Amino acid sequence: MPRAKKTTRAKPDRGTKGRAILAQNNYGKSNVRMVKVSRNGRKHTVREVSVDISLEGDFEAVHTRGDNARCVPTDTMKNTVYALGKSHPLETIESFAIDLGRHFLRLASWVDTARVEVTQVPWERVVSRGKPHPHCFAKGSEERQTCDVLLAAGETQVICGIKHLVVLKSTDSAFSGYPNVKYTTLPETRDRIMATSVAVRWLLSDAGVKRGRFGVYREAVRAALIDTFAAHKSESVQHTLYAMGEAALKACPEVDQIRLSMPNKHCLLVNLRPFGMKNDNEVFVPVDEPFGLIEATVVRGG
Amino acid sequence: MPRAKKTTRAKPDRGTKGRAILAQNNYGKSNVRMVKVSRNGRKHTVREVSVDISLEGDFEAVHTRGDNARCVPTDTMKNTVYALGKSHPLETIESFAIDLGRHFLRLASWVDTARVEVTQVPWERVVSRGKPHPHCFAKGSEERQTCDVLLAAGETQVICGIKHLVVLKSTDSAFSGYPNVKYTTLPETRDRIMATSVAVRWLLSDAGVKRGRFGVYREAVRAALIDTFAAHKSESVQHTLYAMGEAALKACPEVDQIRLSMPNKHCLLVNLRPFGMKNDNEVFVPVDEPFGLIEATVVRGG
Amino acid sequence: MPRAKKTTRAKPDRGTKGRAILAQNNYGKSNVRMVKVSRNGRKHTVREVSVDISLEGDFEAVHTRGDNARCVPTDTMKNTVYALGKSHPLETIESFAIDLGRHFLRLASWVDTARVEVTQVPWERVVSRGKPHPHCFAKGSEERQTCDVLLAAGETQVICGIKHLVVLKSTDSAFSGYPNVKYTTLPETRDRIMATSVAVRWLLSDAGVKRGRFGVYREAVRAALIDTFAAHKSESVQHTLYAMGEAALKACPEVDQIRLSMPNKHCLLVNLRPFGMKNDNEVFVPVDEPFGLIEATVVRGG
Amino acid sequence: MPRAKKTTRAKPDRGTKGRAILAQNNYGKSNVRMVKVSRNGRKHTVREVSVDISLEGDFEAVHTRGDNARCVPTDTMKNTVYALGKSHPLETIESFAIDLGRHFLRLASWVDTARVEVTQVPWERVVSRGKPHPHCFAKGSEERQTCDVLLAAGETQVICGIKHLVVLKSTDSAFSGYPNVKYTTLPETRDRIMATSVAVRWLLSDAGVKRGRFGVYREAVRAALIDTFAAHKSESVQHTLYAMGEAALKACPEVDQIRLSMPNKHCLLVNLRPFGMKNDNEVFVPVDEPFGLIEATVVRGG
Repeated sequence: MPRAKKTTRAKPDRGTKGRAILAQNNYGKSNVRMVKVSRNGRKHTVREVSVDISLEGDFEAVHTRGDNARCVPTDTMKNTVYALGKSHPLETIESFAIDLGRHFLRLASWVDTARVEVTQVPWERVVSRGKPHPHCFAKGSEERQTCDVLLAAGETQVICGIKHLVVLKSTDSAFSGYPNVKYTTLPETRDRIMATSVAVRWLLSDAGVKRGRFGVYREAVRAALIDTFAAHKSESVQHTLYAMGEAALKACPEVDQIRLSMPNKHCLLVNLRPFGMKNDNEVFVPVDEPFGLIEATVVRGG
Repeated sequence: MPRAKKTTRAKPDRGTKGRAILAQNNYGKSNVRMVKVSRNGRKHTVREVSVDISLEGDFEAVHTRGDNARCVPTDTMKNTVYALGKSHPLETIESFAIDLGRHFLRLASWVDTARVEVTQVPWERVVSRGKPHPHCFAKGSEERQTCDVLLAAGETQVICGIKHLVVLKSTDSAFSGYPNVKYTTLPETRDRIMATSVAVRWLLSDAGVKRGRFGVYREAVRAALIDTFAAHKSESVQHTLYAMGEAALKACPEVDQIRLSMPNKHCLLVNLRPFGMKNDNEVFVPVDEPFGLIEATVVRGG
Repeated sequence: MPRAKKTTRAKPDRGTKGRAILAQNNYGKSNVRMVKVSRNGRKHTVREVSVDISLEGDFEAVHTRGDNARCVPTDTMKNTVYALGKSHPLETIESFAIDLGRHFLRLASWVDTARVEVTQVPWERVVSRGKPHPHCFAKGSEERQTCDVLLAAGETQVICGIKHLVVLKSTDSAFSGYPNVKYTTLPETRDRIMATSVAVRWLLSDAGVKRGRFGVYREAVRAALIDTFAAHKSESVQHTLYAMGEAALKACPEVDQIRLSMPNKHCLLVNLRPFGMKNDNEVFVPVDEPFGLIEATVVRGG
Repeated sequence: MPRAKKTTRAKPDRGTKGRAILAQNNYGKSNVRMVKVSRNGRKHTVREVSVDISLEGDFEAVHTRGDNARCVPTDTMKNTVYALGKSHPLETIESFAIDLGRHFLRLASWVDTARVEVTQVPWERVVSRGKPHPHCFAKGSEERQTCDVLLAAGETQVICGIKHLVVLKSTDSAFSGYPNVKYTTLPETRDRIMATSVAVRWLLSDAGVKRGRFGVYREAVRAALIDTFAAHKSESVQHTLYAMGEAALKACPEVDQIRLSMPNKHCLLVNLRPFGMKNDNEVFVPVDEPFGLIEATVVRGG
């Protein structure tokens, strides 16, 4: 996401009239997929990750003069994922991302920042004939655990996240009391389905990064998000989103701020009156588009 | 799938020289999505299905003369899914498909066959604070339960299925002893990852359809497929596929035949020798394409 | 498509009571992508294809005994695409598919049929500063030219096709006069948008295959389809689909039969009355689902 | 893209110890699709757009208290697209986006900024029997024209863009002279395929926005990008990307800055030596992942 910061809406400074200037650049390798099999006797563990690497630094001559003397090939970045992946325990995606990032920072003096994003693909141990199987796995849901780590000299920022966590509650959700402005036709409701695909990113405090208990933070945040979504008496997606963010901050002191993005995956009540039937919140049509998109950042007051 | 039968490779008969003849036709509505909420006190159940309907019959004049007198609108088919869905318990997708099909067969004398395919989208009850939540659900994996029902006068054929069941075993899979033909370069292996996305369809016997215990059949077949995939000492995808089909027939007497389609979702062993490392079946690259595709039909001998 | 024939709805014969029998099998490599650059002085030509190969034959022991002595690796099939692609002019995808299929038939005595499907990915020469550029190309539309070739001893069947040809006409399309059956609510219209994504497959006559002018046939069929879609006064998708099939048969004597599959990509008229406006067929919402699906096979009468 | 700015990596201020604070929020409707048919006698014009709307302002109570008094429904935003679309000529997507944005700014005093993104879906007039058809259209390539307009009191920022412009050059591209760092194995090349899917966004100057000749700017930028990609003697993707940005700034004085994002859609040279063949840059395998991703912002020096 920070990538997007690069298209600043601010005007460029006006020092060198008319000439084109390289204001920012970053490059790297994306979607480097790796499956790692770890063995503990007959019991195997399988982890699959997808890694994106992006470097910033003094790459001016690569762009302006076609001089590649400083251009570490993205193919090398791919190789590095496999080479480091070989010995890394991969217990958390954050620890792997940090180790990769450090490698790239050390690699060359002209690299200023290394950004490493890791997404975990879930493989769940199969239960066969009532027992967890030692080496057979099934792919889990579309939910993904993510991290986005930015390393620079003396600085390690870690944003953890979840995406594609699709949840639905079939009651305790309302939408009413909104202003009746031009072109408003939506009827109010005190009971509807609320469904969404949660995408969330939380920034860890420096202390949290130092302590390094990424798996613990993640469990706390995820449980807070889901429990709050389930229990909340919702007046709007915004209302529930904020409660979820608040709960995550409360559940995990190591989280400094959290951003939630919740598309409203609308389930429309079907009009059954033309067929002489009453639809008492039973039959809905899920529609993919258009969709409401609700986003906010909740931070910890100091 | 039977749709594809329509492009017969056989030559058309030669009765009416040079004229175009409508040899076959079918039409209907696809991707009719419905979410159904059932309530038992405070406890809700959510089911989501996607329905495809297709009719065959005497629709010649619709095509050749633009005469719509017999053309039941596909919009009406969509409405029918919602109207019948309102009162249907939806306990199995097969029972819903059969009821929909019967409705369309009865609807008009010129409809010969009604084909109804139903796919279930899995919503799993959320466990919150240690307890199953009464009305909050999370979307499950990409695995889909399907059925494909064909109704004609006095006939009901039911094909059940599963698709996108993605499974992986990290050992007990080999591939060796194959012929070394022109352009063969693949090295043999006695230990590899085998991963696939199982798509399977099984035809029920008439007796099985009559008994109507579709959920029971499905559980038996699914368990047989997964248990066999996990336990099999595999010499090839074909070898395991056949064992899975055999096991499914054995596990469920109501299955007359079963077709399995198993793309080989290759996990390639990374060559770490350039980095001075040995890769002892630890680090793999999953690749999406090209992929081996293995398919077979296993039937019950009489 | 013929793959689907394999799940026959017919009951298996009852000769070997209770035993599982391998009734049919096929296997191969799918999505083998290749970019071929041909050079004529400074002028380059780029062709991109995706190839699916599938073999049938005596592969019983591979399945039932794990004996791979006859199992030509799918990796070898992939290699063969590149090796044959190196010297093949690729002037038509049909000629490449036939040559690949012949290679596989000759490869081993136990191979009965080889099926090769080729899809072409369109790269269009870029026009830069008013001139066709010698070596720069831009990707074209999502329309794909396809062929599906089946080779067996003494037999070569060629099905050509087009898919993802998305067309829209903003008038000369009606839908009225249909029966008002249970749950019908659709209003009639004499003027609507008709949009579809045409998928079409045509079977060539033996004489046509022998003559081998695949590019000529394709041009004739494609033009007939588009011209007819554009000019037709449509009473329904069926009506236009049939006219398109009829026109294709007329335009190309080498076509024996043609199957068209035309999803109705509905554009719904927006109700602007709540805003005090009249919508005179000006503002529409395109919706992806549910969609009508209309399919038919038109054959040449003898 | 600016949405991403919202997850600031900066630490929140520490004024209200321990409490959760709503630091930023935005909401709106996404993927509002509209097809607009304009008629000039028998000649029709079809335009399809997809609109994303997002508002910021004082929506604190919506989030923290569940008070919807200020929560303009996203359903209303959808209606507004259709209502304004009815009378708008839609000559450029930028003019439509600006008009939509102004509507939302005026709608309520508590709305501070309105962001409107419009993507155009290309429909090209069909040429039938040698003549442009008055009302039949075919969908064009995956290339999309985009704009992203941000309106606040007294301010209108317009970012125009193109995405999914997939181009390939089959020569005049090299990659050599890079540093041989740890894990580098890539061989150097002086002649390779360079292919990419260009995504580009350019910020217009205030004067450019005021003049409002968005179609003219777009044509100039697009031609400069394509001409430069085609003609450039490339030493790397970075080298060509920068030249393209420089050329766009030169071609259109109204562009203040431009950001390019160019994934390297690798075409790998196939190793044909095991088959006794030499691959003289003829046969390549296009691979989707992993991919290099090169991004930079080029600004106009003052």
